[in-house]
This record gives sequence, C-alpha cells and structure tokens, in this order.
Amino acid sequence: MTPDWIAVDWGTSNLRVWAMGPDGIQDQAQSEDGMGRLARDQFEPALLALIAPWLGAGVVPVMACGMVGSRQGWHEAPYRAVPCAPLDAGEGVSVPVQDRRITLRIAPGLKQVSPADVMRGEETQIAGAMALGAQDGVICLPGTHSKWAQISAGEVVSFQTFMTGEMFALMSEQSVLRHGMAGDGFDEAAFDTALSDALSRPEKIAARLFALRAEGLIAGLPACTARARLSGLLIGIELAAARPYWLGQAVTLVGAPAISALYARALAAQGLTAQVMRATDCTLAGLTQAMRLETSQ
Amino acid sequence: MTPDWIAVDWGTSNLRVWAMGPDGIQDQAQSEDGMGRLARDQFEPALLALIAPWLGAGVVPVMACGMVGSRQGWHEAPYRAVPCAPLDAGEGVSVPVQDRRITLRIAPGLKQVSPADVMRGEETQIAGAMALGAQDGVICLPGTHSKWAQISAGEVVSFQTFMTGEMFALMSEQSVLRHGMAGDGFDEAAFDTALSDALSRPEKIAARLFALRAEGLIAGLPACTARARLSGLLIGIELAAARPYWLGQAVTLVGAPAISALYARALAAQGLTAQVMRATDCTLAGLTQAMRLETSQ
Repeated sequence: MTPDWIAVDWGTSNLRVWAMGPDGIQDQAQSEDGMGRLARDQFEPALLALIAPWLGAGVVPVMACGMVGSRQGWHEAPYRAVPCAPLDAGEGVSVPVQDRRITLRIAPGLKQVSPADVMRGEETQIAGAMALGAQDGVICLPGTHSKWAQISAGEVVSFQTFMTGEMFALMSEQSVLRHGMAGDGFDEAAFDTALSDALSRPEKIAARLFALRAEGLIAGLPACTARARLSGLLIGIELAAARPYWLGQAVTLVGAPAISALYARALAAQGLTAQVMRATDCTLAGLTQAMRLETSQ
Repeated sequence: MTPDWIAVDWGTSNLRVWAMGPDGIQDQAQSEDGMGRLARDQFEPALLALIAPWLGAGVVPVMACGMVGSRQGWHEAPYRAVPCAPLDAGEGVSVPVQDRRITLRIAPGLKQVSPADVMRGEETQIAGAMALGAQDGVICLPGTHSKWAQISAGEVVSFQTFMTGEMFALMSEQSVLRHGMAGDGFDEAAFDTALSDALSRPEKIAARLFALRAEGLIAGLPACTARARLSGLLIGIELAAARPYWLGQAVTLVGAPAISALYARALAAQGLTAQVMRATDCTLAGLTQAMRLETSQ
C-alpha cells in the first residue's frame, strides 16, 4: 500500500523513515546512512534504499528534518531566526530529486543571533511536543548537544545549546578518565551528590574531574561510581548555566528515555517535576505538523 | 666517553635520555617509545636502544622519572603521600634489569589522599625548580594535566590537577567544535576576553562552548579566534577553581615555553607576575637532585 507521505529523520549518524497512511504509521525502516558519512550525491540513493519498497505509480511527498538540511548535507535549508514558530507554513525547502516517484522538502533549523546558537532537527521535535500537548514554558532536549528552548505563545523565544552529551562521551571514552569508567551499573547516589556539588559550586568543576582518576588509583573508586559522578558533574554545570531556563518554569523533557530520566531526576532534586515525552514521538508528530503546514498552503 | 650517570624522563608518549658527565650534559637522545605503547618486557630494550652507544665496560647508574613508574609502566614505584619533599633520599625504587652495564632507579610520584590527587614526573620537575631557585609559594606546571602545587619549607604541602590541556585537545580536535578550529594564528584579545569571562562567571562555562560552533556557522567566527576563545575559557575555569593556589601567592610556572606564556599572560591579567622556568631544565635539575640523593646515602 503506497503511503500518503513519508517522514524522514536524518541526523549526523542515522537515517530513520516512516511510511505514513491515513491511520498513521504503516511501516518504518532505518539505516546508519547518517549525514556525516554521505557525499552530496549519495543522499538520494541512501533514501531510496530504505523507501523504494513503499513507492508505486504515484508521487509520494517526503518531509525530512535534521542535519540533512545543513551546509554539509543534501541541500542547505537556511536557518530561520528566533523568535518564530518552530515550524511554519511555506518554510520547508524544496529539494530537487532525480527519482520522479517522490518530492522532497526539508524543514529548516533555527538560529539565534545573540547569544549565537543553532539547532537542526530539534525545531521539529519542539513543534511535535507542542502538538502533543506541551504547554508554554520550557522544552529541554537532552542528548549529545542538549538544547533548552523558551516557548511562549507558540513561538521559540530563545534557546541555548550545551555540549554535555558529547563531553561525557569524550571524557569517559577518550580521556585519561576512561581507565576508571569501563563496566556496567550506575551509582545514583553518586550522581545526586555530584550534581548537587556542581550546581552549588560550578566554579569548582575544573578541579573535580581529575579526582575521578586519582580516586580510582589510590582509593579504588568503582567504575559505576566514577561514571555516575562524571555524569552528575556535567549535567550539574549544564543546569547551573541553564538556571534561567528552568528556575520556576514548567519544563517538558524531550529525549531518549534513559537520558530524560537522568535529567528528570536532576530537576526533581531542585524541586521541579518535569513532563517527559519520547523524542521519537515528538519527531514524528513534528514531521506530521510540517507536512500539514505544507499541504495547507 | 662513558657518562657518570644517565637521566631518563619517561612519560606516556615520549622517552628522553641524557648522558651526564662531570660538566653536565654530554649527549642526549629521544624516541616515541612512551610508557603508553610498551608492554612490560619492552621497556628495557626501548631504553637500551637509546643509551647503548654510551655504555662501556663499567656499570652506569640510570635515574628515571615519570609514567615509567606507574602500575602500567616498567615497575611500579608506589606514590609517596604529601606533605613531603618532592624527592627524598632512599625513596627511589630500584628496578631489576637484565643488562649488567646499568642499574636503574625510578623516582616515585606523589599522592594526596584528600582531595584525591596524584602526580608522576612533576615531583621531579618541582624538585628541579626548587634546585634552580624557585621560592616557597606555588609552582604551576601547565600541560595536558596541569598541576598546581603549594610549596612550603621545601615540601609539597598540597596539589591539584586540572585536565585543561587534554580537554582542549579533545574539544578542538574531536568534538563538533573541530570544524571551526583548523588553521594557524591565535587571537590574543579573544583569549583575554574569554579568560576574563570564565574567571568572573565560571558557572556559565557550559553555555559558552557550543557558541564557538554557532558563531562559526552564522557569524563567520575565524578559527584563530575560536581556538583562542576555547583556550581562554578552559584556562579561565582552571584559574577560577585554582584561585586559592595563586591569589596573593608567588607563582613559578614550569612548562613548555608556549603554554607557560599563555598562563603567564592569564596570571598577568590578574595582576600577578609569575616566574617562568623551562620544563626540560627543571626535569634535568630534578633528576640530578634525585641522583645526588641516592648516592649521598
């Protein structure tokens, strides 16, 4: 059954596609053909490799979001400047394709001039979260590059990116700290203590990191404690710098379940109950919203 | 001419050796046979590959410092606990060797129980700096893992390690920031501004990093400015956390000239004139001191 349209989430590392029909998802597929590993002429074949089984005689519209629209992607979709709605009618960028069975649009990312910031893909998740019921307030999207976005009257008013996830990966897998990080388990009490310490004394962060290695060497610090403390310290300095975004605000977390749970725990320790939504649900709801905006024109 | 003794600085990445005679350095050599790439049975061959040309009929004592004495090194030289002199008589660990033309001792590193910290190699540089005239006060050894050590009455009283150099390398070469960092040049004004910002508002550090990428994308931030700002931010949060070590203190910098110059510039902006010594000079003076302590027993 040919889908009504195809939803595409195309990030740096992964490509995910959904065949969408009148009753929602008909089928889905994914590959590791992320933007980061493709040359410009490899994008259309990578997409067709996943969606060709769904195509028939007609023309199926495809709506994509994410790094596929970056300057190094398939086709640049220039950033829209905040304050603005996360997605808007007529803003999807039409991309020329070879295959006549599809048309393609890419949802543009957002930019903030000062302080300088950018997002690609998260704008679609934010629109999806709003479509799924997120109220005005703040949406936090934890991950490799965590984003905090202030939402008012349906618009993204301001946002701020933190490299927390990428720093955790670099420090736990590539720095000298990696020696004491291998293994399973997660010491929640150590996470809580490190988070509290980093939040209350963020100016000490540079003095806290090497101690994870030193305690491993001279005091037998377990890996599950070291990893949890590193996570708590890094999320703690993110929360310290993002304080204006969450203090006294209604916060919605949009992320993968494990990382959202950590952020929810961290916010709960500050007396704040965050609403939690799954990133994938929000992406799909946002792409649906983008499709609706284009066809309603 | 057979040397009186051989000085060895054996770190994670490099091996450096000096033939020492009655008038000082007779010859020197180095290789990339650092501790990090050698199995236990490869240490002696790696050393002999460099020093064999200097050996004759007699037995030459070899004095080594650095990661060669770590648990993953040739032979573990257990940490000595501060407060203590950086080097002391009878503390060098004697290592069994196959080749009868040499004897080997390794100078042990230092540990601090609380807050947990360790050093290996820097204790020898500290001893060398003191032998070369560094006064009581504070010795800062900037580098991959910067160390700040409080010195009083010839003893290391306390010390603190910062991962500043390693974080700069990871973030500028492996993180998303690498895209805007390639090239030459260093924007000193950007360094100064970032340093001042990080020192006065260290709690904002997590919000400052991704801006380097975003400004590159939407405002054409030059690589020489991005790199200098990253350096200023990271040295800035180090100085913020190390404030008790330098505020109102006599500081001696022991490092490679380029990195020492950056730290001297950063401290000068706080009204502090640091004495600067070359790391290599201090290493050699420290190994000389270690040799003297062993033979004076």
